Amino acid sequence: MSNARLPEVATQLDQVDWKPFPEPFAFGGIRWKLLHTSPGTGDWSAIFDCPKGSSIAPHTHFASGQYLLTKGRMDIRGGAEKGGATVLAPSHGYESNGAVHEHTNFPIDSEFYMTFDGPVVFTNPDGSVMAVVGWEQARAAWSA
Amino acid sequence: MSNARLPEVATQLDQVDWKPFPEPFAFGGIRWKLLHTSPGTGDWSAIFDCPKGSSIAPHTHFASGQYLLTKGRMDIRGGAEKGGATVLAPSHGYESNGAVHEHTNFPIDSEFYMTFDGPVVFTNPDGSVMAVVGWEQARAAWSA
Amino acid sequence: MSNARLPEVATQLDQVDWKPFPEPFAFGGIRWKLLHTSPGTGDWSAIFDCPKGSSIAPHTHFASGQYLLTKGRMDIRGGAEKGGATVLAPSHGYESNGAVHEHTNFPIDSEFYMTFDGPVVFTNPDGSVMAVVGWEQARAAWSA
Amino acid sequence: MSNARLPEVATQLDQVDWKPFPEPFAFGGIRWKLLHTSPGTGDWSAIFDCPKGSSIAPHTHFASGQYLLTKGRMDIRGGAEKGGATVLAPSHGYESNGAVHEHTNFPIDSEFYMTFDGPVVFTNPDGSVMAVVGWEQARAAWSA
Repeated sequence: MSNARLPEVATQLDQVDWKPFPEPFAFGGIRWKLLHTSPGTGDWSAIFDCPKGSSIAPHTHFASGQYLLTKGRMDIRGGAEKGGATVLAPSHGYESNGAVHEHTNFPIDSEFYMTFDGPVVFTNPDGSVMAVVGWEQARAAWSA
Repeated sequence: MSNARLPEVATQLDQVDWKPFPEPFAFGGIRWKLLHTSPGTGDWSAIFDCPKGSSIAPHTHFASGQYLLTKGRMDIRGGAEKGGATVLAPSHGYESNGAVHEHTNFPIDSEFYMTFDGPVVFTNPDGSVMAVVGWEQARAAWSA
Repeated sequence: MSNARLPEVATQLDQVDWKPFPEPFAFGGIRWKLLHTSPGTGDWSAIFDCPKGSSIAPHTHFASGQYLLTKGRMDIRGGAEKGGATVLAPSHGYESNGAVHEHTNFPIDSEFYMTFDGPVVFTNPDGSVMAVVGWEQARAAWSA
Repeated sequence: MSNARLPEVATQLDQVDWKPFPEPFAFGGIRWKLLHTSPGTGDWSAIFDCPKGSSIAPHTHFASGQYLLTKGRMDIRGGAEKGGATVLAPSHGYESNGAVHEHTNFPIDSEFYMTFDGPVVFTNPDGSVMAVVGWEQARAAWSA
């Protein structure tokens, strides 16, 4: 196994094309750019373009993560009106390991960058596991 | 959110009783002691007592992990005879993020300590997800 | 030690005031907002405002990190002209564990957000350690 | 940068020779076996053989870590008699990110295995930094 230091990488965002972040993981036309996957740590990071009215399917974070909402508004668990949280750009957020997000939606055009420290588990309406998305699954989806 | 340094903890192993690590996660009488869970990192660590003939159900590591096999023999993917790996105590092992372990068995009385850097996903014979076991699920199973 | 799930946190950036990121860690008027520190993982994240002509003192990353350059231009190791790297906004970057940055400067007004997975070690011109800056030191500096 | 899954590794401990863990990092004949370094995460793990009367130089953990004391006794901060902690084998311990260990000694023959989630900073009697030891420095010391 290699004990060499890993290379530094820089990626100019406007030289990477958006790809659809498809159903059943998201609805309403969300697109993404996968920016990094780390086989060692399992970290992965991406930027998401979320049009007005789009939403992300129910999921649970099985690792912490941090986001930078650079544009728009994100309603977590239905938003503040429904007892959840409403986040307005520009904002930073910390998602704890174990956070359950049944309903995440974007009432206006929004964009956020997120670093995931490990897998996200998407769940079906009956609570069963739809998919476990870690760095390898994110990379495979991006390359598909 | 607290920004305080976390406390140091020491646990004398012989003051913690073994508990069964039950079917369908393991077979043949495996017992465990959960030693630590870290809500921040999602790390968890445990020691496992594996009698002769016991085995662990098929699983995939969704985070790296390291073990110290302090007693006995562990056959990974059926062991060296079947193209897998045979590990003899005393040994150290590194399990990479993404490692798939369809068949892990202990042909003689064995014991190992392991630090998991995140969740393990147990799978059914048809490849579907049986359970995602991270720090919270490990803690809940231990407390049950 | 608590085994409770950590809380989610959201921070609206324009409700946090900039503070100077002072000499001898940076030069030329760099300001920052500390956004998160994680006592468990040692992660910390911040956003940096770097005026034209500013620079960051020599440092080595003792953990990986990722940044989002949202504005301007960052010259690492003197920039492309001097054999280093020039990064133009909007860009994402991965800094590997062990990366040595003797000279990081901003030739135009720039801004970047960065997640640090652990400590940064600032070094003196003679190569000796000036300061080890992890989550606790970042928090202390921010609170000073 | 490679996006390949990392290999699994197993190391039989009795096929690796002990090497001195030298002054000024330790005193009294401590020996070690470096078992793993992870360039991605910065994790490293080792087993330490600590003869009666040996001690480890003052250090601060800049990442969490976990140990398994398999033999003997470890007195942290002078041990329970002096207001510190005394750990008796077999024991497991969690060292938090930021833990300061001015005085760690082994009053009887002892052995422990430890996973470090990042660097350890050794300090001089005047509090200044003697050395920052992360995965790269551990690997270099082992290979020297």
